[in-house]
Amino acid sequence: MPAIPIRYVGGAEGPWRVVRVAPYRGATLPTAPRLAVREGAGEAVGAAWALRGVLSNIRYTREEERRALVSAQAPTGRALATRAALLPIRKSEAWWALAQDTRRDILEEQSRHVAIGMEYLPAIARRLAHGRDLGEPFDFLTWFEYAPEDEAAFEDLLLRLRASAEWAYVEREVDIRLERDA
Amino acid sequence: MPAIPIRYVGGAEGPWRVVRVAPYRGATLPTAPRLAVREGAGEAVGAAWALRGVLSNIRYTREEERRALVSAQAPTGRALATRAALLPIRKSEAWWALAQDTRRDILEEQSRHVAIGMEYLPAIARRLAHGRDLGEPFDFLTWFEYAPEDEAAFEDLLLRLRASAEWAYVEREVDIRLERDA
Repeated sequence: MPAIPIRYVGGAEGPWRVVRVAPYRGATLPTAPRLAVREGAGEAVGAAWALRGVLSNIRYTREEERRALVSAQAPTGRALATRAALLPIRKSEAWWALAQDTRRDILEEQSRHVAIGMEYLPAIARRLAHGRDLGEPFDFLTWFEYAPEDEAAFEDLLLRLRASAEWAYVEREVDIRLERDA
Repeated sequence: MPAIPIRYVGGAEGPWRVVRVAPYRGATLPTAPRLAVREGAGEAVGAAWALRGVLSNIRYTREEERRALVSAQAPTGRALATRAALLPIRKSEAWWALAQDTRRDILEEQSRHVAIGMEYLPAIARRLAHGRDLGEPFDFLTWFEYAPEDEAAFEDLLLRLRASAEWAYVEREVDIRLERDA
């Protein structure tokens, strides 16, 4: 897949109602009534904020994990998925200075990031955009989408990831919750 | 290190004289009399071309390799390094669809990319910028800098890399050679 630009735009427009914008670590973002997800390049006029990222190649996932994810995961945009969370994350410079195998070891062998996410498939659909090479304030824009009855499962997933060794390298994280009409 | 934008600008300005612009694979670029290397964001007005990339985190290098590279490599900008090569490279979508461990296996275990480069340190200084997430035509802007007496060594390094399994995934490569006054 080519690298596809994506923008999460907080403002007056979009199908998602913003239920909550809260800091998890570091500075928060202003709140906004609605959120729109836009693919492709472009400017956001009059928005409270626009977070830019790129849907790009996988960075840590091994072939056997890639196959398991592809066979288990659900796409975004399912009619039943009327709840979502946008978690923009920035990691520390210490993280980015680590070698590839050291980062993989922390992410998976120590933190089970891929394995934990797999346990919640297909209920919790996920989409990851990368912002670091764009000079954006967030390295990752992580998006989760699920049915109302899977909200407790999502909270559980989030607790487990945030308790992991990997999260010691997260220096900024904002927690944005969203709902839309069925 | 934060991700640092870098531009290689072909046009009327810059310390480097363009000696040759030749296609190695796929479409070439127009020639230009001079080349300037600019760090930071900005526009190139009136240039023949401007290739954008980001000096970013390492993607495949393991910790023991990182340490060996750091202790062996020379910086760019040495007074003796009056020859340079800029090799913008685009890899195929098939490459980018591969899992991380498969790409690493092709790059190093099959192709010895890191190990081969190491043999030519410190004579051949290198700098790698990433352009794929920026939506640029080239995924990589690879820069090599050396003294005139190391030109044969550079040609040898290039022959070995281009003969590797990894290069089957290169779908576009332009070969730009440069000289500057001592």
